[in-house]
Amino acid sequence: MQHRSPGHKSSALPIEAATALRGRFGEDFQTEAAVCQTHAQTLTWLPPEAPYGVVFAYRKEDIRDAIRICSRYAVPIIAFGAGTSLEGQVNAPHGGISLDLSRMDKLVELAVDDMYVVVEPGMTREALDASLQTSGLFFPVDPGAAATLGGMASTRASGTNAVRYGTMRENTLALEVVLANGEIIRTGTRARKSSSGYDLTRLFVGAEGTLGIITGLTLRLYPIPEAIAGGRCTFDTIARAADTVLQALKKRIDLARIELLDSLCVRACNRHAKLAMEEAPTLFVEFHGDMLHVERQAEKFRRIVVSGGGRAFDWATDQEERSKLWAARRNAWWAIHEMFPGRKGVTTDVCVPISRLSDCVDQARVDISRLGLDAPIVGHVGDGNFHVLIMLDVENSAEIAKAEELISRLNQMAIEMGGTCTGEHGVGQGKMAYAAIEHGGAIATMQAIKHALDPNNILNPGKMLAPAKANRLFGQGRSP
Amino acid sequence: MQHRSPGHKSSALPIEAATALRGRFGEDFQTEAAVCQTHAQTLTWLPPEAPYGVVFAYRKEDIRDAIRICSRYAVPIIAFGAGTSLEGQVNAPHGGISLDLSRMDKLVELAVDDMYVVVEPGMTREALDASLQTSGLFFPVDPGAAATLGGMASTRASGTNAVRYGTMRENTLALEVVLANGEIIRTGTRARKSSSGYDLTRLFVGAEGTLGIITGLTLRLYPIPEAIAGGRCTFDTIARAADTVLQALKKRIDLARIELLDSLCVRACNRHAKLAMEEAPTLFVEFHGDMLHVERQAEKFRRIVVSGGGRAFDWATDQEERSKLWAARRNAWWAIHEMFPGRKGVTTDVCVPISRLSDCVDQARVDISRLGLDAPIVGHVGDGNFHVLIMLDVENSAEIAKAEELISRLNQMAIEMGGTCTGEHGVGQGKMAYAAIEHGGAIATMQAIKHALDPNNILNPGKMLAPAKANRLFGQGRSP
Repeated sequence: MQHRSPGHKSSALPIEAATALRGRFGEDFQTEAAVCQTHAQTLTWLPPEAPYGVVFAYRKEDIRDAIRICSRYAVPIIAFGAGTSLEGQVNAPHGGISLDLSRMDKLVELAVDDMYVVVEPGMTREALDASLQTSGLFFPVDPGAAATLGGMASTRASGTNAVRYGTMRENTLALEVVLANGEIIRTGTRARKSSSGYDLTRLFVGAEGTLGIITGLTLRLYPIPEAIAGGRCTFDTIARAADTVLQALKKRIDLARIELLDSLCVRACNRHAKLAMEEAPTLFVEFHGDMLHVERQAEKFRRIVVSGGGRAFDWATDQEERSKLWAARRNAWWAIHEMFPGRKGVTTDVCVPISRLSDCVDQARVDISRLGLDAPIVGHVGDGNFHVLIMLDVENSAEIAKAEELISRLNQMAIEMGGTCTGEHGVGQGKMAYAAIEHGGAIATMQAIKHALDPNNILNPGKMLAPAKANRLFGQGRSP
Repeated sequence: MQHRSPGHKSSALPIEAATALRGRFGEDFQTEAAVCQTHAQTLTWLPPEAPYGVVFAYRKEDIRDAIRICSRYAVPIIAFGAGTSLEGQVNAPHGGISLDLSRMDKLVELAVDDMYVVVEPGMTREALDASLQTSGLFFPVDPGAAATLGGMASTRASGTNAVRYGTMRENTLALEVVLANGEIIRTGTRARKSSSGYDLTRLFVGAEGTLGIITGLTLRLYPIPEAIAGGRCTFDTIARAADTVLQALKKRIDLARIELLDSLCVRACNRHAKLAMEEAPTLFVEFHGDMLHVERQAEKFRRIVVSGGGRAFDWATDQEERSKLWAARRNAWWAIHEMFPGRKGVTTDVCVPISRLSDCVDQARVDISRLGLDAPIVGHVGDGNFHVLIMLDVENSAEIAKAEELISRLNQMAIEMGGTCTGEHGVGQGKMAYAAIEHGGAIATMQAIKHALDPNNILNPGKMLAPAKANRLFGQGRSP
């Protein structure tokens, strides 16, 4: 357990805590350096900070008992799902243990008539998709990563479908949560709406494991659409693409997905898959409904594209054709990484009112260009949400400083435009400084709630609401 | 100010508090009995409990200063909008002042492109509708009453459109709130989604003024649909009507409204408006979209009705025809009151998973019949939400006891069915006992949050989370 670098307050678990955890969990409590490191090796751009030990949970009583032991010895406890969070949410800056929930991956109940499912927190969305295959239903929230549903709830994740189906906020009906005192509570019901009591479900969704640890989720499902139309069109400028999004929303086009790739993304996709798409800002759209409905939506959208100065809108309802049209969007992440071999991708996301989307993206592009960075932009533009993927040479400290400047400028600009410093990645460690700016005096209210529910600050400390420190890209951590 | 009946802890405001309020608010602080009584004369079935004084607020600084004075002298402060809440939310069981927000009724900003509006809390939804008339946009949340938007947010109101557009929970983007300590915070942003920080917006929505007082709301708007189809059909049994709702949802019918009246309601409407509708369980539906879409939805719905044993489904897109078809639904409240002259209507609402709707309504009808009560049922059945309107002879104590039994049985049954004791009316005083059953251990979490944000319990005390007492119908209050 002595693998922490110096400078940390303590370099191991208190011996009594380790003994208690060993006694309760046996082989499911592990402290080998390799296991601890694995639980800090995530998709985040922040330096990994490994826990002192890992508890593998199989049932809610394991979570309860781990929290009770950690509470008794004031040991930090950090819920861990798939390790796909992007802003350092599962790092252990104050040590403590990682509570690995990946083995709690069962579907508990599928209610086809009422269109909900109850799952354990470690179930991944792909596993849920597979479980639903014959039900006629689907769960719409689809972040890029192979995330767990508990993690998705905890970061208030969304994805490409949010413009029509909402995010984890709208699609989590109820939760079971273990509190810092070890009590297990249930929030919400299986009814679709309620006016009864404080909305604790929405409080734990997005709390990143700082208020409690989710042991079960009741999620809303939707009937699989009869037909899907997918399409693609290009524009001279991002402003024209963004204006087309705004027009489509105002003209009540029933959008299920509307995604933007900038021209650099498109170039990467062309190289990756030997395509010959025009290397210009490109919108990818999808419509859900019955065949006539999706055809009519596609036709209406085509007219908006044409009148907005876009080029030919290609669309199809046939699955194979749709798949070809959308291939670039689906492969964008890998295509970009392939285009910049040896670079590390650092992604940041913001979300603004849709009328400001074009200004915000344009200004980001100006900054990227001025700073000489390679940073394609991908957006869930129906929500006003977009990502900048900065492809960094991590040996080049000047470039790192420029990336920090870009992230800082972009986040502050989004907040000034009436938006938020993160549309779907969460705050974790990476956005604490911007969240503090965004929320102003409301941060104190959040801190009061945190203190009320976790007075000893054992639940994922050093995240979200902690005193904001400047997070330096690759600047202050141990090497992985 | 000496108008309180004996038995209360104190019978007036502390003299220092009254002096401070008079000094700050002058004529906008009133203590005349008539004014105080007016602020307890609401639509609730609970006995009125008047405040000791009323402050009329014109701007957020008034709210802030009223809270600061109340905080200094530990005086309860109760936000008051239109007085249309149903569960005693604006009663003053512990005295204190009512903060009348009805004069803060301005539209602050209308963002047509981004489809949101910023309003003061005292604006009514009718006034908002009027303000939006030329914008091409509308706000969908439509509780029956002429409520204020601040009150609607505070009770997490919904209405007939919720099946498609959601409730105040989904449609409140951001809030400005004055806390118990007098600080003014902003929650949320103008972006459509965010993963930044605890979801304070959703925490204050539905908190019934117990955590803070709302001084401004940013609400989501929607484009007015190009076309609307409205229709009506009858069934032999409520079970068949409820099954039709379930089938329509599963078969992806794009429902904008789906409302149920039971046969007693229909009879009342026939009498009220000299109609000749079949006196059987009746569904009223509405579809929004372009003309072809709504026509197709109506046709698809017709097929479901027929195969589910319903009678002819009459529908129309013409406004006048639609209006006729829906007249009964719109007039139900008044028709029922007219049918039972001299009776007082006591309404209770519950919400269950949709597959349990028919069982729950059927059991309610069995109980109503066994108890010999006159109690029609009206439901927002697309959400699993329905209301029982008990028409009571308030001089008949045996009948009152029966109504109490019905309410108790219905609420507990809804909770046992995985539902909630209130879909849209809120907890107030009337549902405290049932909310305690529904939330179990989670009530302590709510109390911890309440204590953290309002340690002296000055914000609307005795509501929602207070130790549950048996609320006797007309049983314990002073006469109005």
